Formats: sequence, structure tokens, C-alpha cells
Amino acid sequence: MAQSLVKTLCGVGALAPRLNNYYNNNINDKGQNMKRYGSVIGVRAEKLEEYKKLHAAVWPDVLKMIKECNIVNYSIYYHDGLLFSYFEYVGNDYDADMAKMAADPMTQKWWDVCKPCQRALESRGEGEWWAGAEEVFHTD
Amino acid sequence: MAQSLVKTLCGVGALAPRLNNYYNNNINDKGQNMKRYGSVIGVRAEKLEEYKKLHAAVWPDVLKMIKECNIVNYSIYYHDGLLFSYFEYVGNDYDADMAKMAADPMTQKWWDVCKPCQRALESRGEGEWWAGAEEVFHTD
Repeated sequence: MAQSLVKTLCGVGALAPRLNNYYNNNINDKGQNMKRYGSVIGVRAEKLEEYKKLHAAVWPDVLKMIKECNIVNYSIYYHDGLLFSYFEYVGNDYDADMAKMAADPMTQKWWDVCKPCQRALESRGEGEWWAGAEEVFHTD
Repeated sequence: MAQSLVKTLCGVGALAPRLNNYYNNNINDKGQNMKRYGSVIGVRAEKLEEYKKLHAAVWPDVLKMIKECNIVNYSIYYHDGLLFSYFEYVGNDYDADMAKMAADPMTQKWWDVCKPCQRALESRGEGEWWAGAEEVFHTD
């Protein structure tokens, strides 16, 4: 189950499945428990404009599901063939929230249009789509 | 002046000098005007551990200057030879704050030890050290 879940996590952003030490625990301004995630993936040159257009107007149901799954302050950046994502997770059960997102039909449809634009990196971990990055510095 | 300032911005993180459309304006939870910046740079394989150690214990004076220059929620991630940074700027004059940081002697010393660990990307913009990345998605 964990493996199949992990392999479906490929959509709007990082949603890195590994719960290891590349995030820090923290408390945000709202008093929520918060964990930061950074991830990276390639984007196909011929699909970059399509990817940008999709992300300039992400489907409302997809944004709603992101919120419901306790992901906030979520950004994706592009540079030179790569996409980098940063988000903050403010829920209490990351695995359960990611499973909920992966089971959402609209999110699945969204991933179906986004995934062909992306190019998963050889350097990603087993079962990852976006490669989870290691936090090496943080200051509030 | 702008060019020489830009060339000195090479330190603890992104501090991307270009004030162009790769950030969004926003208001954060504290009611501050806020702009997000994402940037990327290489790290030399033989210097990665040194870079991590430096950033696990950044000099207090450097952290203090980051705060004074209105940079908050600042993270750096590592994956596969690259460093990605994300921070939020909450001041009213980015250029002036970056000039203040670049003029700080302790920050200059910090950059002197960090810069040899880094490898600036060919794809960076003119005058950049960290390459400014383009924001392609954000949701609060």
C-alpha cells in the first residue's frame, strides 16, 4: 500500500512521500505544528509552457484538496529545466493526508495532465516522483 | 553600483538581486507586505559536507543581519549537486536591504567561507551568483 501510494504522488507539486530527516518540525505563526518540504523534478522543454499555463490556473478542486490535506504556503519555481517546490505541512498525519489526496478523482485527473510535462530525476529516491530534497539550512 | 552590489550577493542563500517577475506580492500572516524568492546554485561535491556543517551552525551575526534586512522563513535544500533556496522578503526596499547586507563585514566573511563551496550555474542571469528562479505556482 505504502509503495503504491507513493508512486501515485506525482501531481501539482512536491508531495514528497518520505517522512525522513529532510524536514524540520516547527510551529508557525498560527500556532500550528508545521513541517517544511522541498523537492525537485525535471520539466520537459517542449512542455514547459504548457506546465506554466496549467499552473497559472490550477483547477479550483485541486487547490481545495491541497488545503484539505493541510498543505499551505506552497510554491513551485522553475530554472533551467528543473522545478523546485516548497510547501509547509500543517496537519497531524502526513501519510493519511497524502492518501486522501491520491484518492481524489479530480487530483488524479490533474496529475494525468501534469505528469507528462515532468521528467522524474534519476537521482530520486525509491518510490518518489518528485525527489525529496534535504533541508540544510533554515531560519525563521 | 548596482552591478558591483549584485556581484557581491553570494552568501548564505539566494539573495537574488533581480527585482523582476519571478516573485509575487503578497500579504503575510503578520500583515506585512511580502515577496517570495526562489533561487538555485550548485555545490561542489567535495565541499558538500563543509557547506552542511557551516549551515548547521550559521554565525549568529549573519543570522542577525538576515533578520535586519527583512528576510524571513528562509530555507536552503540540497539535492544531487544543487542547492535550492526559498525565502520571504518583508521589507519595503529590497535593493537597500541587500546593499546593507553586502556592506556588513561579518556577512562578507561568511560569504568568503561559503562561496568556495558553491558552483555558480552557467544558466544564471548577468550579475547573479545564485540564479533567480521563476515562480510558476503559488497557493497560500
